[in-house]
Amino acid sequence: MKTQTKKSSDWKHQLHEIIYEADTPAGKWFDILLFIIIIISIILVMLESVKTIDDKYHTILLTAEWIITVFFTIEYIARVISIKKPSKYIFSFYGIVDLLSTIPLYLSFFFAGSQVFLAVRALRLLRVFRILKLVRFMGEASQLKEAIKSSRAKIAVFIYTVLILSVIMGTVMYLIEGAEAGFTSIPRSIYWTIVTLTTVGYGDIAPVTPAGQIIATIIMILGYGIIAVPTGIVTVEFAKQGGSDTNNADYSAEIHTNTQVCRHCNADNHKDNATFCYNCGNHLHEH
Amino acid sequence: MKTQTKKSSDWKHQLHEIIYEADTPAGKWFDILLFIIIIISIILVMLESVKTIDDKYHTILLTAEWIITVFFTIEYIARVISIKKPSKYIFSFYGIVDLLSTIPLYLSFFFAGSQVFLAVRALRLLRVFRILKLVRFMGEASQLKEAIKSSRAKIAVFIYTVLILSVIMGTVMYLIEGAEAGFTSIPRSIYWTIVTLTTVGYGDIAPVTPAGQIIATIIMILGYGIIAVPTGIVTVEFAKQGGSDTNNADYSAEIHTNTQVCRHCNADNHKDNATFCYNCGNHLHEH
Amino acid sequence: MKTQTKKSSDWKHQLHEIIYEADTPAGKWFDILLFIIIIISIILVMLESVKTIDDKYHTILLTAEWIITVFFTIEYIARVISIKKPSKYIFSFYGIVDLLSTIPLYLSFFFAGSQVFLAVRALRLLRVFRILKLVRFMGEASQLKEAIKSSRAKIAVFIYTVLILSVIMGTVMYLIEGAEAGFTSIPRSIYWTIVTLTTVGYGDIAPVTPAGQIIATIIMILGYGIIAVPTGIVTVEFAKQGGSDTNNADYSAEIHTNTQVCRHCNADNHKDNATFCYNCGNHLHEH
Amino acid sequence: MKTQTKKSSDWKHQLHEIIYEADTPAGKWFDILLFIIIIISIILVMLESVKTIDDKYHTILLTAEWIITVFFTIEYIARVISIKKPSKYIFSFYGIVDLLSTIPLYLSFFFAGSQVFLAVRALRLLRVFRILKLVRFMGEASQLKEAIKSSRAKIAVFIYTVLILSVIMGTVMYLIEGAEAGFTSIPRSIYWTIVTLTTVGYGDIAPVTPAGQIIATIIMILGYGIIAVPTGIVTVEFAKQGGSDTNNADYSAEIHTNTQVCRHCNADNHKDNATFCYNCGNHLHEH
Repeated sequence: MKTQTKKSSDWKHQLHEIIYEADTPAGKWFDILLFIIIIISIILVMLESVKTIDDKYHTILLTAEWIITVFFTIEYIARVISIKKPSKYIFSFYGIVDLLSTIPLYLSFFFAGSQVFLAVRALRLLRVFRILKLVRFMGEASQLKEAIKSSRAKIAVFIYTVLILSVIMGTVMYLIEGAEAGFTSIPRSIYWTIVTLTTVGYGDIAPVTPAGQIIATIIMILGYGIIAVPTGIVTVEFAKQGGSDTNNADYSAEIHTNTQVCRHCNADNHKDNATFCYNCGNHLHEH
Repeated sequence: MKTQTKKSSDWKHQLHEIIYEADTPAGKWFDILLFIIIIISIILVMLESVKTIDDKYHTILLTAEWIITVFFTIEYIARVISIKKPSKYIFSFYGIVDLLSTIPLYLSFFFAGSQVFLAVRALRLLRVFRILKLVRFMGEASQLKEAIKSSRAKIAVFIYTVLILSVIMGTVMYLIEGAEAGFTSIPRSIYWTIVTLTTVGYGDIAPVTPAGQIIATIIMILGYGIIAVPTGIVTVEFAKQGGSDTNNADYSAEIHTNTQVCRHCNADNHKDNATFCYNCGNHLHEH
Repeated sequence: MKTQTKKSSDWKHQLHEIIYEADTPAGKWFDILLFIIIIISIILVMLESVKTIDDKYHTILLTAEWIITVFFTIEYIARVISIKKPSKYIFSFYGIVDLLSTIPLYLSFFFAGSQVFLAVRALRLLRVFRILKLVRFMGEASQLKEAIKSSRAKIAVFIYTVLILSVIMGTVMYLIEGAEAGFTSIPRSIYWTIVTLTTVGYGDIAPVTPAGQIIATIIMILGYGIIAVPTGIVTVEFAKQGGSDTNNADYSAEIHTNTQVCRHCNADNHKDNATFCYNCGNHLHEH
Repeated sequence: MKTQTKKSSDWKHQLHEIIYEADTPAGKWFDILLFIIIIISIILVMLESVKTIDDKYHTILLTAEWIITVFFTIEYIARVISIKKPSKYIFSFYGIVDLLSTIPLYLSFFFAGSQVFLAVRALRLLRVFRILKLVRFMGEASQLKEAIKSSRAKIAVFIYTVLILSVIMGTVMYLIEGAEAGFTSIPRSIYWTIVTLTTVGYGDIAPVTPAGQIIATIIMILGYGIIAVPTGIVTVEFAKQGGSDTNNADYSAEIHTNTQVCRHCNADNHKDNATFCYNCGNHLHEH
């Protein structure tokens, strides 16, 4: 296996290189095409939801939707057949997203005659999750993920505290303000408390009694101060990672450019000089 | 006393281990059960406050409330009798919370016939403070507490400044805007100023005169900038604690798992290999 | 002069010690009394502005106001006569605040008969600035002041940028939205832009056209991101000061307790073992 | 060229020194005059947009506008003729801004008779971009720019995440809330989601169903937490730059005071002792 050299005779191998990787011109063009089609697809879903536009251009929108569905169907099939162990792709995050991006239109046939209008509507809107296909192009974001991951416990305690505070403050406001001011039930009061604590402040519900306004003031100042906690947590995490950065100064500029993906196990993030998959041990350029 | 070994014959000792500690299977199951019942209890209080739900399911809600009250009563009695010095528990934070979580339904008997509707309502809502029983499960959160504690003085100065600013700005807005725009009194204007300064912005009161809008703009930019102060304070405190972290790198992952609680003085946070209570000197496993 | 010992025969000296300093029991009691009277005074101004309260208790409020004015008058005179160079106090920040806190009621005599209602009202509201007398009790806050001072230039650039952005974005919104949505003039549009950029969001003016909503979205995300800039600036400044803190670990706990104030030049913040004023060279305990 | 000494005989050279540089008294006065005229010009555009003011003082505003336009015309011509390679100035950022600041009134002649009212209005509003001329006086702001530049990639990932989140959450809200609550289309729902996520919260659209309010609550807490990410990124970048600051402690105080601008290539930021332009190699004081 070690002496095996890269041959490009196998069409499945070539397909894999085009679809999964981005270091050949064809692979790059495929990625750009996919990106544009996803964006168009999302815009279509949005436009369809605007009544005035849908009334006018219904046929055009539906036709475009069919073209996109066909493209995504071909892409999905190509991804499944070009990989050696299809299950590795099918049950991965992207596999599920790709499937969900493809089926809505097909499924709408089954429900077409039925009265379950909401189900069909929900199904069609499912297409918006195609946006998750874009995550593919987001690159690493590893530092962000790392920072959030390692401060998970602290963030959980923070949210826990915010929720306990909201429940208590919400109940107090319900007792003080009552139904006239819009605090008709505890859940609604809690909703208002979170709206205030997070400094969103819609104003659809607002305290009218002096006592209620004093409590509201306290909640606001609390919310204004508490925002410092997640900020502090994340900043310190970033700083820690930034600290090790100084050793290899150009780290932040180092964007992962190796787009090799193992055909056997679908693992990515291989080293630039890797010949074998770090995950399953198979030859990366084998076919 | 030093040579005394752990015996589990005493039922009170076993009860203490189940209720107060979480390192035996029974203790863990009790904790999970308690957690679920508290959550259910809070949801009941909330649902009861929603008129449409209360009208429909009043009997079910009341029955469920009785079952929970009985459970909490048994829990409270068990906690009191299983500890050696009941006063240590009764007058602790959790002791008071547990009592307040149990009595509302009992007390409502005394006020049932009376006309003091608001008192009864307030009493029933007291049950929402059961959520504080959840603090038990929140683990340490010690770093958060530490950071807030050591920046107490700075935060006090910050709140002091915000309040002085609000009083002055509120008065100025009262003078400029007057009653037409909703600035009917100084307290109301101060309320509006805090709503603006904390960037909540309900919009129930909003300046209408050009002069008022200019002042409002200044308050907003002030508030937008001032938020940096608590954030800066807390971040630096976190960073300081994080600085000593680097020495023992896995600190953040180290969650306190020793749930031993002294039966004599109710102290917790014992060391893993502790045989005697660090607080009162009694044997931890004695009974 | 160096051999001169402290004598308390001089009543002016004793008065100075009581009013200006807080290290004698009498001085402490005076400070507490002053603090309470200021707070009461502010509350009185607020209550007076609430129409329903003023209608009911007008006489009581006016009487209380007179008592407080007399107290502040005596305090002001005592401060002037107990200091060696009255001008040093009179033209200081506190001197001016103390004078403004005292005169409103006296001045209202001159304007009483006149028709200049607004001037009298403004004059009476001037009393709210008494809250600035509280700054005296705020202690040092030196670290906060220091951090803001040394990041002054950066904060100025930040505000400059925010204002330029607001003017441009406000004009664009004025052009797109027009008068129907409430964007009746450029100043009003700029006001709305700042309301949005600072994430206050009253909702008194809100974009209605799709194009306006897209621009609004961009402004919001900008504002959401830009808030990071003052936060970053202040945090780094705090961290710098905190960095030198680690050398003398108990710095944050070190609250300035020497309340000696020079009778000659009104300078404070003397060293604990100071015998002579660091500012004018006179003996601190001389009389 | 090296032996060439500075002579001030050339009037073009003198003009260049006055307009482009600020180290001669004349140059300083010109800068102050320009600053004041720009500010007045912006205020004029604003006042013109206020209908009541424009109706009253239309002639005065127009006259003032003409005076300013003439001044800017002279300034533009002077800038072009005093530089050796006019194209270097004309196609620079300031060159374009200066041109745009001058032409609106002239262009309005061409469109005066036409019906394209909106175009004329847009053209007149173009004058507001004169505010960009103020950027000249903003000094360096280099640290801010640097911090934002080096955290560009992270900020892009952050905005990308926010947008993906908004699209998904907006669609979910559209499905749950429907048209009654104002969520009439997906784009509108996404607009609402961004209003909520950025904690702006206008309240023009607000969820009314319990399910919608629960999702809204999640979006708010997400937005409240996510704000920590840009803050963390920018703070760490500032801290890194601040870290190298400690070596040359007075860096923050060091404001660039050399205002020499090369007459050949319009490059600025020359060293204090520079004789030749670092960019094109020509003599800086040559004429």
